[in-house]
Amino acid sequence: MGVVLNMDGKRNMASVEPLIALTQEEMGKVNELILSKAGSDVELIPTLANHLISSGGKRLRPMITIAAAQMFGYSGEGHVRLATSVEFMHTATLLHDDVVDESDLRRGKKTARMIWGNQASVLVGDYLLGQAFRMMVDVGSLDALDVLASAAAVIAEGEVMQLDVAKNLETTEDEYLQVIKAKTAALFSAAAEVGPIIAGVSKNERAALKSYGTNLGLAFQLVDDALDYGGSAKDLGKNVGDDFREGKITLPVILSYRRGSEEERKFWKHAIEEGASDDAALETAKSLMTKYNAIGDTIARARHFGEIARDALAPLKSSPQKAALTEVIDFCISRVT
Amino acid sequence: MGVVLNMDGKRNMASVEPLIALTQEEMGKVNELILSKAGSDVELIPTLANHLISSGGKRLRPMITIAAAQMFGYSGEGHVRLATSVEFMHTATLLHDDVVDESDLRRGKKTARMIWGNQASVLVGDYLLGQAFRMMVDVGSLDALDVLASAAAVIAEGEVMQLDVAKNLETTEDEYLQVIKAKTAALFSAAAEVGPIIAGVSKNERAALKSYGTNLGLAFQLVDDALDYGGSAKDLGKNVGDDFREGKITLPVILSYRRGSEEERKFWKHAIEEGASDDAALETAKSLMTKYNAIGDTIARARHFGEIARDALAPLKSSPQKAALTEVIDFCISRVT
Repeated sequence: MGVVLNMDGKRNMASVEPLIALTQEEMGKVNELILSKAGSDVELIPTLANHLISSGGKRLRPMITIAAAQMFGYSGEGHVRLATSVEFMHTATLLHDDVVDESDLRRGKKTARMIWGNQASVLVGDYLLGQAFRMMVDVGSLDALDVLASAAAVIAEGEVMQLDVAKNLETTEDEYLQVIKAKTAALFSAAAEVGPIIAGVSKNERAALKSYGTNLGLAFQLVDDALDYGGSAKDLGKNVGDDFREGKITLPVILSYRRGSEEERKFWKHAIEEGASDDAALETAKSLMTKYNAIGDTIARARHFGEIARDALAPLKSSPQKAALTEVIDFCISRVT
Repeated sequence: MGVVLNMDGKRNMASVEPLIALTQEEMGKVNELILSKAGSDVELIPTLANHLISSGGKRLRPMITIAAAQMFGYSGEGHVRLATSVEFMHTATLLHDDVVDESDLRRGKKTARMIWGNQASVLVGDYLLGQAFRMMVDVGSLDALDVLASAAAVIAEGEVMQLDVAKNLETTEDEYLQVIKAKTAALFSAAAEVGPIIAGVSKNERAALKSYGTNLGLAFQLVDDALDYGGSAKDLGKNVGDDFREGKITLPVILSYRRGSEEERKFWKHAIEEGASDDAALETAKSLMTKYNAIGDTIARARHFGEIARDALAPLKSSPQKAALTEVIDFCISRVT
């Protein structure tokens, strides 16, 4: 079964609440550890780090790590540190991303780089990455270290790929999927996989959680892409049309461009490649997306990956964690439907 | 005994040659590993990485790792990977530094950011850091991982500290030493310490090599600071006066400012804090440094740390590696004397 529909505005939607409830105790410890490990005698570091850390991200990735460890009966404290490492890797990536994308807003607040500059954002990102690795070392699992270190390299690789395809409207859907698999899905994948690793369970369970994370990450990113042309700034914590104004190649653009007429493709080139992306152009872009059902089909693609994530978990024995992680798939997709 | 003097231009100076000779075989493997691990299907990554990697750095840090492992009879292959990790961490730092400092030249070549942009430099730095951690994980020593991960965090911390003191002429010598201890000496220290760690020797030897690395790193940075007001661009691979033009606070500036008259301090404020740092101002700066022996005293400070590095190694039993590492101290200092 696919997405649970939101009818009449009632709260019968798929929800992240079960995951939050299951991981509440450990996430309290994660939050403490975040504050302590983002600390430094160099005041600018905690100030800048906390600006982003306290800005209301959902902490989906660390919750996945916690639940994926609980699921296999893990009873130690290592998952708290690994979850914190995952969140730090995510935060470091956001800090560097905002510099690379020259973004002004993130989750409805000014980006760190707008307040403290690009330089501090690059360096505090580096610091958080170093702290993340220190925590992983503390946990002492070389397997978990391998998965997370590889993810760090792959994420950076994905970001460079994205520079490569930047403003190139001829980018294929396959090429774009490769980019988001690296830049977004790799961390979801690692976050999920380190759960069974630290719980010491078999290869099959590792593979299941890894596949779950990868496909959830792909779905998550595609929904994000759709939201950028659809939701309201309040829901998003970012301005609708940010991707468009930055000339970013995302799936709704790729589909609209490929399906468009010669003349429509000229519009896209003008807007994305030459930067003619004012409000009027954004309206045109949205109407072309409607004409070719580019948003609807982006969400359909997200659902496809959501189904794969669901099936990845299917053979595992029933547990509240399995149910919560499965519901999160629908939750991610229902942000936009 | 201090520095071996260079008389009549003859090659009787302290030299890095013994260290090069001792580590030649392993450094060949390090170079292969560098090329392979800087590789990626994303072409921009090896292109950008190799621009910097092949630009003729001395590879002092990885040579130190190799020699420090050899010294204790290590016979495996792990030191090659750790040495490569150290060089990647160094390269990643340089890529991010050039972005943070907005530098145009590095080792006499255009910086990567001038050719491929700040964005790519940030991201390829992240990629190399991720690859460095993967190699460390391959080696499998949690102790070595701990030392290098801590160094990564401390280096970033030092760079943020440097932003903090940027253009602040009231920075004390102590504060400045704290900055360079973190941003430069931490990696020398880690490079040296992982040698005995992987060779599995006792705490005392680890402490000796760690202290050697730290103090060599401090001496190295202070000599670099002096060279920026002294050497020729050809020797340096950078423009003399780069630090001055960027308004960087380094020890020669700190000493000249603190020793100067009220009026001379006004000159420094104008030059460093307000950016009035043209060629004429550089000449004035140099003459004030001569007046107060700021370069000579910076080198004297470097010698002081060099002596501590020498004494750190002193109790270890004689070996070609000990001799070569000791000679490198004088080599670093004699770059400028």
